Amino acid sequence: MSETARRRGFFWGSFEIYGGVSGFLDLGPLGVGLKNLIAEAWRESFLKPHGFIEMSTPIITPHRLLEASGHVESFKDPMTECTQCKRRFRADQLVKEQTGTETEGLSLEQLGNLQKNVKCPECGETLSAPQYFLTMFKTSIGPYGEDPAYGRPEAAQGIFVNFRRIFEVMRERFPIGIAQVGTVLRNEISPRQGPIRLREFTIMDFELFFNPEEPDSPFISEVQDEKLAIVTEKTRKEGKEKLTEIRAGEALRRKIIKTPWAAYFMSLSKRFLSELGIDEANQRFFEKLPGERAHYSAQTFDHEVKLDRWGWVEVAGFAYRTDYDLRRHMEATGTDMRVFKAYEKPVERTITTVTPRHDKIRQVFGKDAGKIVALLASKELSKFLETQENGFVEVGGHKIPVDCFETKEQKVKESGARFIPHVVEPSFGVERLIYATLEYNLRMKEDRLILSLPFKLAPIQVSVFPLVNRDGLQEKAAQVYHSLLANGFRADYDEAGSIGRRYARADEAGVPLGITIDYETLKDDTITLRDRDTWNQIRAPVGQLKPAIERIARQGFPAKHPIGSTL
Amino acid sequence: MSETARRRGFFWGSFEIYGGVSGFLDLGPLGVGLKNLIAEAWRESFLKPHGFIEMSTPIITPHRLLEASGHVESFKDPMTECTQCKRRFRADQLVKEQTGTETEGLSLEQLGNLQKNVKCPECGETLSAPQYFLTMFKTSIGPYGEDPAYGRPEAAQGIFVNFRRIFEVMRERFPIGIAQVGTVLRNEISPRQGPIRLREFTIMDFELFFNPEEPDSPFISEVQDEKLAIVTEKTRKEGKEKLTEIRAGEALRRKIIKTPWAAYFMSLSKRFLSELGIDEANQRFFEKLPGERAHYSAQTFDHEVKLDRWGWVEVAGFAYRTDYDLRRHMEATGTDMRVFKAYEKPVERTITTVTPRHDKIRQVFGKDAGKIVALLASKELSKFLETQENGFVEVGGHKIPVDCFETKEQKVKESGARFIPHVVEPSFGVERLIYATLEYNLRMKEDRLILSLPFKLAPIQVSVFPLVNRDGLQEKAAQVYHSLLANGFRADYDEAGSIGRRYARADEAGVPLGITIDYETLKDDTITLRDRDTWNQIRAPVGQLKPAIERIARQGFPAKHPIGSTL
Repeated sequence: MSETARRRGFFWGSFEIYGGVSGFLDLGPLGVGLKNLIAEAWRESFLKPHGFIEMSTPIITPHRLLEASGHVESFKDPMTECTQCKRRFRADQLVKEQTGTETEGLSLEQLGNLQKNVKCPECGETLSAPQYFLTMFKTSIGPYGEDPAYGRPEAAQGIFVNFRRIFEVMRERFPIGIAQVGTVLRNEISPRQGPIRLREFTIMDFELFFNPEEPDSPFISEVQDEKLAIVTEKTRKEGKEKLTEIRAGEALRRKIIKTPWAAYFMSLSKRFLSELGIDEANQRFFEKLPGERAHYSAQTFDHEVKLDRWGWVEVAGFAYRTDYDLRRHMEATGTDMRVFKAYEKPVERTITTVTPRHDKIRQVFGKDAGKIVALLASKELSKFLETQENGFVEVGGHKIPVDCFETKEQKVKESGARFIPHVVEPSFGVERLIYATLEYNLRMKEDRLILSLPFKLAPIQVSVFPLVNRDGLQEKAAQVYHSLLANGFRADYDEAGSIGRRYARADEAGVPLGITIDYETLKDDTITLRDRDTWNQIRAPVGQLKPAIERIARQGFPAKHPIGSTL
Repeated sequence: MSETARRRGFFWGSFEIYGGVSGFLDLGPLGVGLKNLIAEAWRESFLKPHGFIEMSTPIITPHRLLEASGHVESFKDPMTECTQCKRRFRADQLVKEQTGTETEGLSLEQLGNLQKNVKCPECGETLSAPQYFLTMFKTSIGPYGEDPAYGRPEAAQGIFVNFRRIFEVMRERFPIGIAQVGTVLRNEISPRQGPIRLREFTIMDFELFFNPEEPDSPFISEVQDEKLAIVTEKTRKEGKEKLTEIRAGEALRRKIIKTPWAAYFMSLSKRFLSELGIDEANQRFFEKLPGERAHYSAQTFDHEVKLDRWGWVEVAGFAYRTDYDLRRHMEATGTDMRVFKAYEKPVERTITTVTPRHDKIRQVFGKDAGKIVALLASKELSKFLETQENGFVEVGGHKIPVDCFETKEQKVKESGARFIPHVVEPSFGVERLIYATLEYNLRMKEDRLILSLPFKLAPIQVSVFPLVNRDGLQEKAAQVYHSLLANGFRADYDEAGSIGRRYARADEAGVPLGITIDYETLKDDTITLRDRDTWNQIRAPVGQLKPAIERIARQGFPAKHPIGSTL
């Protein structure tokens, strides 16, 4: 697969002429095209029909933000070093490979114990006790070298810190969905899975904010009956890893999926992957155990795809992030991240207000009274009074009698309440989607490789071939090529090599249609349309190309036309 | 401008709730939309009609690559530190601000001399002698901390190191144009120009490779007569900074522009900016003096736009990079970056070959002969022989008589030659294009702000408004909204606030068309179409919306229709 991807210009490892650096990928012309088309298909599935939107924030992110979000504390992997050759490895992966034990979520101590029988895979010597390694790329902003920052490991944080502003721009409607498609950086210790484990990749993070008192999704009815194949936390805890096949609605009722939005997005995700050509039987949702989940998540399902070389691989994650992130940024910055929700009608409540009695304070404290009043000004007095012992509260070393305070009960009308929204996050890794899409669309026909990308996802939709490079066929072909471009098709022009070789090349590049300009074309202005998947051919007039191609894109190539038949 | 941009959700400074960090920008929903549409318009102008392509490479780039490209040596700015408050500044900018002297390209010593009368802008104290500061973000790859890397300061290098592979994928045709749209990072010392001077931004780098023996562009005839306003190196050297108005063809003939490809792209660029709404009178090409140019460039023009707040600002650069980059990577890695060009017919040449005479060497050097032969193996012998003195050449301390070598003359037929391609690079800063596009499309009508984006560039093309939120108008409006989305329009739905307020909001957001659903709609299935720029209104049947909008997008809103007239 990777060999075809490289030959046809989809992707290959970066910095090859400099010896290569693992964990980095280059995308060639077809790779960029496929990437953009996958992202666009994702927008059409997740964003556009719902009126959800996108934003964009920087990759370089200050330390203090990622400290508040918990990443500085939690975004780390256990690392071990060979005592002999000094190479470093991910301790959990080595232990899993060499002992077969599942290691996700284990503590350093547990790993250290399991690691006793594990040897350096390079030189066979013993390994050091595992330690944590922060897997964010570190740098610093500006000329002082003392303003630490990281490459963001997820695009989500840029959305959380902007939640209030976007919410206002979007006219304060709920539910609100905010996405970001962009680069993330993860300084993996020793990535050894080619295009699957990358240090730099494109993420499609999507944060859906909802009122935890009203967790329903208005779209849930559209997916009630969508069948999901889930490996649940429950069966995993029982050591069974059993596949549960269940409809989305039923999974919600049985609380296998905790939130309606997660059930909705998981269903959309299954449909989206099917659209990319990945059949149902090779998709599953794998629920993470509490110790395996990211620090912010209350429930996580990985959407996994079975790949020939790598087995089950996560291409998307669905995390119920609760109010974790907004709350952390609220605590760190004092910015009010809450949203006001009006009650249907105002509610009457009794509230207690406490005020200091200045006359009493003067009596008790004399010339210190001013200081006492100042000290009290920063206190929330009703809570402060609860700290009383034996009729006194203490502030700055002064004991104040509780009768220095006046307590009043008041009835107030409240028109609504404030809440911190909860978040469900679908998050996709684009390079893995590219990889899976290629693998599931690549097939053999006779002895040739064909990349059967759907018309919608084909980076090149039509290739134009002059049969030979003389007698005006090139000029005519160039004309047809430019008219296809002008009509909005993704077209290519190829005059290099025999016509058979050009067909083969186009098949491997996933081009659904070929157009051949031959001597007939000069006589009657008709061309040959060739189908990538069946190699069937029909003739069509140049003037009818646009509607003919549009019809084929909708309905497929006309079946069983003998070669040379006219459309 | 920035205030409108912020309010309507185009862009604002990043990390605001954490106090902000200068040099970073967030894009809101409309900002992301406009960015993608500007990039798409650029592709349609520079890439698609020519069959040029895009690729994508990592942001994180190993030290050894950027050392070879000359960036580690040259990508730096002069920095000075206040002796009192220890703040750091760009020395050249401070000197220019406080003395009015042009400082681009000055040496540290020249700057130091000019800096004697310059004071710290924060505390008024004296400044330290300027030193260079490397303006790339530094990090390291992997767990050792000893594999230094940088955030790439340009996307071009990823293209150069991949030139051979892409050239093969693209079937070895010339000219070949390879672009990359992506994030670049520049650790500016003290950016103080808001959205204009960013530490992280999106670049559209485009490398056009050509045979230096055949520098012509096949497209040049399309732009012969395009008028360019150039401030030439010549007038600048004469201290005049005079604007030369000249047609592209004439500028080439008079060698004001050195390469046809640069003249072609500069002309396209002028048209492209005009399409964004930036009128000719506020565009110019500013040629850089030798000392001001980047280390790789033999000629550079900045395409500048006049901005209200910032004066003339570079939005694009056109650099003639010659074979500098390919040659450097070839020298650093030994990868042959040359391209083979067949002659029309083979050429006969006489070549001289030199071989060591092993028998002679054994006679002279005895048991050392093997060592001598090994030492000679790495030499290009015909050149080596030229180093002879008095009949001897020296290698590894050994003097070897020249008669130890045999020189033969041979006639060979050569079918072609190899050359390193030359490169012309147009490079655009996307955030600056967004800024300029907003400024040039923002206007006042009566007391209201209108963003007159062309239909093609409007992130939202149509807003749908129910007149009131009752009696089924919302449901009907939602129906119309969804049918617009399904027809591929970029649509929005807005029911918040009075209809006047919603119109005003849409005008400021650059939405060309408004559709109002009122009580008439329920009776006769017609709606009101409202024009953003004239506020004219016409009625149209819901069933005719698609063709009506398409016609308006092509031809503009029908003039002078009285409010309420039917299409």
